[in-house]
Amino acid sequence: MMERVYLDNNATTRLAPEALQAMLPFLTEEFGNPSSLHGQGRAPARALMAARHAVLELLGAEADGEILFTSGGTEADTTAIRSALAADPSRREIVTSTVEHAAVLALCDHLERQEGVTVHRIPVDGDGRLDIEAYRAALSPRVALVSLMWANNETGTVFPVEGLAELAHRAGALFHTDAVQAVGKMSVGLRGTDIDMLSLSAHKFHGPKGVGALWLRRGVPFQPLIRGGRQQRGHRAGTENIPGIVGLGRAAELALCVDHGAVRLLRDRLEQGILARVPKARVLGDPLDRLPNTSCLAFDFAEGEAILMLLDRAGICVSSGAACASGAMEPSHVIRAMKVPFTAAHGAIRFSLSRWTTAAEIDRLLEVLPPVVDQLRALSPFGAEEVK
Amino acid sequence: MMERVYLDNNATTRLAPEALQAMLPFLTEEFGNPSSLHGQGRAPARALMAARHAVLELLGAEADGEILFTSGGTEADTTAIRSALAADPSRREIVTSTVEHAAVLALCDHLERQEGVTVHRIPVDGDGRLDIEAYRAALSPRVALVSLMWANNETGTVFPVEGLAELAHRAGALFHTDAVQAVGKMSVGLRGTDIDMLSLSAHKFHGPKGVGALWLRRGVPFQPLIRGGRQQRGHRAGTENIPGIVGLGRAAELALCVDHGAVRLLRDRLEQGILARVPKARVLGDPLDRLPNTSCLAFDFAEGEAILMLLDRAGICVSSGAACASGAMEPSHVIRAMKVPFTAAHGAIRFSLSRWTTAAEIDRLLEVLPPVVDQLRALSPFGAEEVK
Ligand SMILES: Cc1ncc(COP(=O)(O)O)c(C=O)c1O
Ligand SMILES: Cc1ncc(COP(=O)(O)O)c(C=O)c1O
Repeated sequence: MMERVYLDNNATTRLAPEALQAMLPFLTEEFGNPSSLHGQGRAPARALMAARHAVLELLGAEADGEILFTSGGTEADTTAIRSALAADPSRREIVTSTVEHAAVLALCDHLERQEGVTVHRIPVDGDGRLDIEAYRAALSPRVALVSLMWANNETGTVFPVEGLAELAHRAGALFHTDAVQAVGKMSVGLRGTDIDMLSLSAHKFHGPKGVGALWLRRGVPFQPLIRGGRQQRGHRAGTENIPGIVGLGRAAELALCVDHGAVRLLRDRLEQGILARVPKARVLGDPLDRLPNTSCLAFDFAEGEAILMLLDRAGICVSSGAACASGAMEPSHVIRAMKVPFTAAHGAIRFSLSRWTTAAEIDRLLEVLPPVVDQLRALSPFGAEEVK
Repeated sequence: MMERVYLDNNATTRLAPEALQAMLPFLTEEFGNPSSLHGQGRAPARALMAARHAVLELLGAEADGEILFTSGGTEADTTAIRSALAADPSRREIVTSTVEHAAVLALCDHLERQEGVTVHRIPVDGDGRLDIEAYRAALSPRVALVSLMWANNETGTVFPVEGLAELAHRAGALFHTDAVQAVGKMSVGLRGTDIDMLSLSAHKFHGPKGVGALWLRRGVPFQPLIRGGRQQRGHRAGTENIPGIVGLGRAAELALCVDHGAVRLLRDRLEQGILARVPKARVLGDPLDRLPNTSCLAFDFAEGEAILMLLDRAGICVSSGAACASGAMEPSHVIRAMKVPFTAAHGAIRFSLSRWTTAAEIDRLLEVLPPVVDQLRALSPFGAEEVK
């Protein structure tokens, strides 16, 4: 079989071989519980500390910040949001955006419906940029928490979280950022910012699945989501996933050395190549501030899932800007929030690269994609005429 | 260095080599996201289904039950308890016991203090058996949930959960069992019982750390703890920990074949051997219904942590029936709940075997332990005289 071309690194990534190597001792001889007082617990306890430091380093965070290891990005987001609401019961509002990940939006919907929380969902413009006026207007002394993503998983659009956090603090609100797509894909520096909490997920940057972290600035009030044993200073109970945490730590070390510029060059080659070869294609997301690895392209008069399926047959893995809504595929909430024109909204495809993506892989895509889009447009009731 | 003798399998276990082998493809080539619609998602999606079936099989559960994969036992317990409270807001009481794991007790304490829930903590007798009269008396139409462990982590005492579940149902309450210590260490059969929810944790039976499951009987009302993406039918959001889940599935298959009788014979050899060699030692827990792998012994006039430390120096790993309370070591809540006499309460040691424990290892312990206890008693202000 032909080697697959994997261009879906915002969905998940290949585990770095170095991370697996670091994990293996803890999947074999060093299987101990770090809470144990005997010899078998010692290496795991040390490894836990080392991983904490590696993550703090990757985040460019002060050494006194807290790293809570979680089961992934979704748990980290849930923990941050619920903790902030519990911190000050007099503040019952949350400010977020219309383009957050479901890990934030589904919880906010629930809090609004079931727990009497008021949620402000700040809109974005056609390029996915946050409406700053609407954001300012939503901030008030009733706001417990602002939760805004650092980078969008579909378009790669980067929000200016440092400035947004400053505004949140002026209103006395805590600021959380879902940085699940940002960490490992761009430089992140927390030192000196007003960001209070940050979520990350290891499998998005070549770490293992099933482990993530919530970073907490020192002194930020905190309430655990998962109570029980005294692991992680009582802030996140449950026997620690030592192999996963070690893998996350190693992935963090490796991520510090990634040449994001090289990834960007390849992404630009992909994007320019497609725009040159496929008519009526457009790039979605902020043209100025996007993740270097992500390109979300919409093709007029071609169904995204059909493109995905035909690329899959050719061994190319991508994702479509669609979500399954009541059985049918609908443009995702991000595409809808950006008010992408109808002719294009159903034809969005996300290409997401990794540091291992090669120029040859991009060229293969550039060969396969244009005839695929042509073929689908020929079948479309409008497509064939319109794109002439 | 001498090989360690690991007798702390209730704290955590060595990952089964077969489980690691099953995980490795998913830590390398099959790194895909099971939600992906392309080829890279297929094998992970299939593996997820297979693991579900393996866990249902291990639990002796009907095929239509739901397996929610979680990050471990603590998350499973938290999910079950919060879900039951959300299911029927008119029921605001929980019935549990004084000897549950902190994963249940710490959450119950919080619910009582912060969320207006009434908690009935049913006491146990000197052998750790539940006070059935007190249990019956606590059941009422106000009770949302009974949460009682299947087997105790410190003493191995097994609660008669089938009968306890029947009583709970008569009162219209849901029944959850924390089976984190039972699963893989004894036969568990859910078919035909009144049990509604069951928690398990892979690392307690030679599966990987960082993964567990909540089993839900079909039709039991459910509210997720972690919302977000549509993974696991929306019941537990977050990208699935595929390698961990595969390891759990394989560990479940292996656990079905364990000869619990053989483990029990070795445990009895340990217990008889110690009682024959060490005066003033007593077995804690139910003499009739205990996990086959667990022996909790209390040594009058010897400090548990000191025994633990001296055994550790000899390369033997055990656990003490103590918890760190405000800096000092205090008898654990389980020991206190059993009203173990003061002279013994501080001298409890838990020995927990696995299917890989050998007779030679037990004999090594039987050689090392008696002089250790003697030595400590000689130092005790009361010990030397008393145990003559
Ligand atoms: C009875 C019992 N319940 C729950 C747990 C918590 O499991 P985990 O540490 O995997 O979250 C444990 C393990 O420490 C346990 O022994
Ligand atoms: C922006 C963003 N937030 C949160 C998540 C959730 O992360 P996980 O699936 O690891 O829980 C994802 C990944 O899907 C994401 O892209």
